[in-house]
Amino acid sequence: MKVLVVGANGQIGRQFVQMLDKSGTHTPKAMVRRQDQVSFFNALGVETALASLEGSIDEIAEAMAGCDAVVFTAGSGGETGADKTLLVDLDGAAKTIEAAQRTGVSRFLMVSAIYADRRENWVDEMAPYYVAKHHADNILRASGLTYTIIRPGLLTNSRGTGRITASEQLDGGPIPREDVAAVLLHSLSNEHVYNKAFEVISGDDPIEEALNRL
Amino acid sequence: MKVLVVGANGQIGRQFVQMLDKSGTHTPKAMVRRQDQVSFFNALGVETALASLEGSIDEIAEAMAGCDAVVFTAGSGGETGADKTLLVDLDGAAKTIEAAQRTGVSRFLMVSAIYADRRENWVDEMAPYYVAKHHADNILRASGLTYTIIRPGLLTNSRGTGRITASEQLDGGPIPREDVAAVLLHSLSNEHVYNKAFEVISGDDPIEEALNRL
Repeated sequence: MKVLVVGANGQIGRQFVQMLDKSGTHTPKAMVRRQDQVSFFNALGVETALASLEGSIDEIAEAMAGCDAVVFTAGSGGETGADKTLLVDLDGAAKTIEAAQRTGVSRFLMVSAIYADRRENWVDEMAPYYVAKHHADNILRASGLTYTIIRPGLLTNSRGTGRITASEQLDGGPIPREDVAAVLLHSLSNEHVYNKAFEVISGDDPIEEALNRL
Repeated sequence: MKVLVVGANGQIGRQFVQMLDKSGTHTPKAMVRRQDQVSFFNALGVETALASLEGSIDEIAEAMAGCDAVVFTAGSGGETGADKTLLVDLDGAAKTIEAAQRTGVSRFLMVSAIYADRRENWVDEMAPYYVAKHHADNILRASGLTYTIIRPGLLTNSRGTGRITASEQLDGGPIPREDVAAVLLHSLSNEHVYNKAFEVISGDDPIEEALNRL
C-alpha cells in the first residue's frame, strides 16, 4: 500500500515514515505543510506532498492522489492555543476524512489519545484537546471508511520495545512514540483492527499478537 | 410543547423565553448554569433548571425531564477563548444532543451561524468558532432527532420587524436577535422546517411565510 502520512514531520510521523519506507511492503508519501520540511524526507528518498490542514479539502485530496491509505498523526501540539486545536486536530482531521471519501481512499488510521472516548477522564487543562480528538474520532467512525483508531497513553521518547498492552479501555500508562509508529505499521493491513478503536500502552505482548486479540 | 431553552440567560435566550411564555401554546423551561441567573426567570414565573454545559450528560438530561423540545442557543461568547468554544459551543451542544437522545426528547432546534456550512467563508479570526458550530450542526443532523438548524446573519440589538429572508444559503446581512427568537418560536412546530438547516437575515417576508417556503 502507498500510505499518505498526514503530520509526517511530527515526532511519531517521522518515525512512522521511516518504518514504512523500510518495510518493503508499504510506501510512504509524506504530507508536510512547509517547504522547509521537505528536505528531511528528500534525504530519505521519500515522496512528499505540500498541503496544509488549514487549507481546502481539495488541497488535501490532491496530496492523497495515488494513495491506498491515510494515517493521520497530525496535531497542533501543546505550544499553540485552543484555536489551532479546533482548526488542526478537529477540522483538519475532518477535512482529511472528507478528502479520503472524495478520492476513494478507503483505509484510514487515526492517532487519537487515551481516554478520548471517556469524558469522565478529561482533566481540566486537557479537556479542549480531548473534545477535538473525541469528535474527530466520531467523524471517522461515521465516515464509512475502513478505520482504525489508535489511542496511545502518555507518549515518551524512549526506545520502542515492540511490546504493548492493547484493549478497548485501559487505565493509562506510558508508551514510546516508536512503539506507536510500530502499532500503526502493524495495523495497516491487519483485518483484526479494521473498524475498531483501542487504547495502547507499553506492555508484555508482541504487537502483532496484541492486535490479533482485539 | 414544553421547551428546554439551553442558553436561556443569553441575549437571544432571554427574549425567546419571554416569547414562549406569552405564546399561550408553548411553555419554557430555562436552563441556566448559575444560581444568580435564576431570579430573572423567577420574576417572570418561568421554571428553571440548573445545569452546566461543561457538566455531565446526566446533568443536562435531568434538566430536560418533562420537556418535548430543546432549543440550543448557548454560546461561550466572544470574551472567552477558543478553549471555551470547544467545551461549550461544540461539546456542550454534543452533550445536549446526546441527552435528548437518551431522554427521548425528539425535537431539537439549534441556533447556529450564517456560513457555518461553508468553509470558504470562514474569515481567519472567526474560523475556530465556525469549526465548533459546523461540527455541532453535523452531529445534530446525524443524531436521528427532528432538527431545525437556524443560521442567522450578523446579530443586532435592534427591535424585531417580524420580516425576514430565509434560504439555504444567503450572502450575509444583519438580523435583530428579537427576530431570531421569533424565528425559533415559529419553527418549533412548523413541519416545513423539520430536518432542515437555513440561513436567515432581515428581509421583506413575514416569518411564517418565509418558513413555509423553505
